Amino acid sequence: MKPLRVALLGCGVVGSQVVRLLGEQADDLAARVGAPLELAGVAVRRLGRRRDVDVDPALLTTDAEALVTRDDVDIVVEVIGGIEPARSLMLKAMAAGKGVVTANKALLAEDGATVHGAARDNGADLYFEASVAGAIPLLRPLRESLAGDRVHRVLGIVNGTTNYILDKMDTTGATFNDALEEAQALGYAEADPTADVEGFDAAAKAAILAGLAFHTRVTAADVHREGITDVTATDVASARAMGYVIKLLAICARSDDGRSVGVRVHPAMIPRTHPLASVGEAYNAVFVEAESAGRLMFYGAGAGGAPTASAVLGDIVAVARNRIAGTRGPEESVYAELPVHPMGETVTRYHVSLDVADKPGVLAKVAEVFAKHDVSIQTVRQEGHGDDAQLVLVSHRASDAALSATIEGLRELSIVRAVASVMRVEGEDTP
Amino acid sequence: MKPLRVALLGCGVVGSQVVRLLGEQADDLAARVGAPLELAGVAVRRLGRRRDVDVDPALLTTDAEALVTRDDVDIVVEVIGGIEPARSLMLKAMAAGKGVVTANKALLAEDGATVHGAARDNGADLYFEASVAGAIPLLRPLRESLAGDRVHRVLGIVNGTTNYILDKMDTTGATFNDALEEAQALGYAEADPTADVEGFDAAAKAAILAGLAFHTRVTAADVHREGITDVTATDVASARAMGYVIKLLAICARSDDGRSVGVRVHPAMIPRTHPLASVGEAYNAVFVEAESAGRLMFYGAGAGGAPTASAVLGDIVAVARNRIAGTRGPEESVYAELPVHPMGETVTRYHVSLDVADKPGVLAKVAEVFAKHDVSIQTVRQEGHGDDAQLVLVSHRASDAALSATIEGLRELSIVRAVASVMRVEGEDTP
Repeated sequence: MKPLRVALLGCGVVGSQVVRLLGEQADDLAARVGAPLELAGVAVRRLGRRRDVDVDPALLTTDAEALVTRDDVDIVVEVIGGIEPARSLMLKAMAAGKGVVTANKALLAEDGATVHGAARDNGADLYFEASVAGAIPLLRPLRESLAGDRVHRVLGIVNGTTNYILDKMDTTGATFNDALEEAQALGYAEADPTADVEGFDAAAKAAILAGLAFHTRVTAADVHREGITDVTATDVASARAMGYVIKLLAICARSDDGRSVGVRVHPAMIPRTHPLASVGEAYNAVFVEAESAGRLMFYGAGAGGAPTASAVLGDIVAVARNRIAGTRGPEESVYAELPVHPMGETVTRYHVSLDVADKPGVLAKVAEVFAKHDVSIQTVRQEGHGDDAQLVLVSHRASDAALSATIEGLRELSIVRAVASVMRVEGEDTP
Repeated sequence: MKPLRVALLGCGVVGSQVVRLLGEQADDLAARVGAPLELAGVAVRRLGRRRDVDVDPALLTTDAEALVTRDDVDIVVEVIGGIEPARSLMLKAMAAGKGVVTANKALLAEDGATVHGAARDNGADLYFEASVAGAIPLLRPLRESLAGDRVHRVLGIVNGTTNYILDKMDTTGATFNDALEEAQALGYAEADPTADVEGFDAAAKAAILAGLAFHTRVTAADVHREGITDVTATDVASARAMGYVIKLLAICARSDDGRSVGVRVHPAMIPRTHPLASVGEAYNAVFVEAESAGRLMFYGAGAGGAPTASAVLGDIVAVARNRIAGTRGPEESVYAELPVHPMGETVTRYHVSLDVADKPGVLAKVAEVFAKHDVSIQTVRQEGHGDDAQLVLVSHRASDAALSATIEGLRELSIVRAVASVMRVEGEDTP
């Protein structure tokens, strides 16, 4: 059988593993595809650079544009990342009839419409399992296995760096800065950790997941995003004392009436008994709640060269099989056209910690503010120490707008010395 | 677009949910498939029976044979279960060019060769996600997402009934019989629980999983099978004391040299820190260890009408999309032709509890027996009570044959009054 030829764009952490696996697993891959897979070329920025894998120098090129349209290329694998030149190269490849495999979450979340549109217009395959949660098979189950079901909610830990940091804070009592330094020393966090700790990476993944889960279009700009830089050791300890753990969650949910969706990334307390609570280190896990399937969880390595390459290879095999069969995989399915509602309309719960004067009547005044905004209180815990007291309240479900207004009202009370922390509580309600 | 028409064989717990969802989700399904899905007919044993769902009486028929070959049928869904008449009906359907979706683990595990062979010979689709672990998307990830990876091991809880029983024994200290009675009262176990508690159900699923994971042919008869009826409250308590929990595991693993595979179902101790340890109630979870992807876990409802129907619907959508595209899904991939090695060659560890005479030299004699069979001991714990003592040993990894021979040798020692329990230990070693 005639080999299928793969052009690789980028030969960094993921790309070098793709090269290695295409070589080492050649026999298995050929058996699974029904034809050998061959590397046609590898586009890199600089030819002479040291790489983690031996690449035949004759395959290396700096001319990515020429590579993606070459007649002897069937499949283009994009692992450069970022918006440009990745987007232009993918569009060129699809226009030239190539199947495309990408790990590019930023591009899909920011400008998915263009890329998916090009796939549709050109009848080209576009596979992107590696763009979310690394090796965890998540997009294929959402797109295909659950195609006959109705997803209500996706709730997940989709950023390994922040999970490592929060896990360290939880298990050792470390501060955010100390945990971040450790993560950097171990290579889990980059020198500039902004994309991870401010939630940009998770927000891009949340946009992709929401689009697939609800068959609608969601972009990174639609995602309400809060990072973990303000999470203190006190917050973590307080959560622990109440049987919770703090995780950076990506939450994609239908509204109660099903007519809109909310997509958000923020730190939240979840009960220690929740399956996501035990996801430690840099692991990822995603919880999916569907009408018929019930609660499903997918767990695994969310990043790293080899795990991400595993997802890329799975997609290469799929595109290769499609080309042999003369067909293509499932298209983007955005028929639902559900609006993304603002964060204020999201229904959630708050954990609020207040520093208050320790005198009679304080709770009554605080409770009045909650009542004024129609937010009911689930639990209250008061701890006095001398003149001061700490008041910890957990609300019932209410709109985020009502909860925000409640916090504003509390700040205006003279008996409230400080709003020490405010954090959402998730994972206790089922749809 | 011309509707795609579905013939349903069986209208019991799963079938009635398939009928309901085809109706309730009709608009969503049509949008996902690109054409409406219509119920063409439902084959049942008796027409007048009460069902969990309203079915148009005009659709009901007792003539399944005629239904599966009808010209107006595109997709045949088999949820009767068992070997016959399910097999004959599926073969007839595929010979008539229909796509087939089945939830029939028994048939696929016992005679997969015939059914997969018919799919290949007729160029027909055969999808079976619902046959293992209900709603958990597991087969599609193994077949497709991991198609570019090399799976080393699949380790899972694939039977909800036994997990419910063992979980009750662990959390309440109940005996096997009490926990079984409770499971029966709650509908988790059948009046005749043999298929579940003796491991037949899990063994069929293990055979299917091993075949997919290792691209080879494995039948139910190849699976080493031990049930949970001999697990005592003492075993459970002893495991708990040592930081373990007992689970009925299905384990499919390549041998160390990669040239053969072992497939087994038996109760085993796993560390409480293992992700499978926290899988409670009747839930299922499957751990997959792959070379590049690392450790993945899939968790969810392993049985029940609606969850299983969700998996069936996902497959119906896939077959329907394939028919519209004029193609078919991935074929069975058994190119590897790896032999299944006997249980004796499986490498594992044993937890052994002995009632011994409490006098000096006992441990030396016991250790001698282990040494004679080249089995090294990892930990020993001795507890004296009066004349008797209990000696608890955990071995290092050794062949099951060597471990069995060690137990035989221990039984022959006069200072060993009884071998109180022997159980394998899993989940501590990574490949």
